[in-house]
Amino acid sequence: MLKLAACLPLLLALSTVSNSAETPESAIRAVLSAQVAAWNRGDIRAFMDGYERSEQTTFVGATVTKGHAQVLASYLKRYPTREAMGALTFSGLEIRPLGDVYASVLGHFQLDRPVTAGGPKTGIFTLLFRKTPLGWKIILDHTS
Amino acid sequence: MLKLAACLPLLLALSTVSNSAETPESAIRAVLSAQVAAWNRGDIRAFMDGYERSEQTTFVGATVTKGHAQVLASYLKRYPTREAMGALTFSGLEIRPLGDVYASVLGHFQLDRPVTAGGPKTGIFTLLFRKTPLGWKIILDHTS
Repeated sequence: MLKLAACLPLLLALSTVSNSAETPESAIRAVLSAQVAAWNRGDIRAFMDGYERSEQTTFVGATVTKGHAQVLASYLKRYPTREAMGALTFSGLEIRPLGDVYASVLGHFQLDRPVTAGGPKTGIFTLLFRKTPLGWKIILDHTS
Repeated sequence: MLKLAACLPLLLALSTVSNSAETPESAIRAVLSAQVAAWNRGDIRAFMDGYERSEQTTFVGATVTKGHAQVLASYLKRYPTREAMGALTFSGLEIRPLGDVYASVLGHFQLDRPVTAGGPKTGIFTLLFRKTPLGWKIILDHTS
């Protein structure tokens, strides 16, 4: 009991650090930053780590694509080369918690590419995140 | 007390009816059906009853529109006449509860209109619903 009492200040300090570093908003921003970094080094598979590895994971673009593997395949088909992937930035992120386990994100993307690789592209996305045992993951992405 | 006891079977029966008729999915389907009915009788204001009456209510189309009044104004501008509104149908609705208070909906819309009124239009929408004191309401609509 004395040992536990001695540890208490440390435990409290650690719990404070953990809480302040891991709000849903900061955790979700970290996932999106990791996605942008992965994209900009040409690593679509690492980019896909932001999505839940589930058959239910859904991407809505011109059509509806279901399943983590199918969404990955669609990205690989649409962005077959490093040049086609261009340089990605996200902006204007608005993160809204929906209870403790879900959150929605609204944001804008910009893809800078030479005209020979398809030219620049901009758009709006709305994402639905779920807090999973592996962290916050995208379960629904609607990009237009 | 005797009077209350006498009412109990009736109260229990009513509560059962209310529960079985009011799953989140059936309540949300009813909101969407009411929206389609309102649209098809040319009543955009009644259609807007499906959205939460809030400054945060968001419509994502080609741009982002915020606020119930602003979304209404945008609909009135884009669909100024009964003919421009055409005949609306929703299909392929997929409703996913997100905890007890939120739900997401994926669906397809079709607008049948004569060419003189803009021609037919189809698209995909993802909605975010919130259970409010006034029932399930759309807080975010992304249509593309």
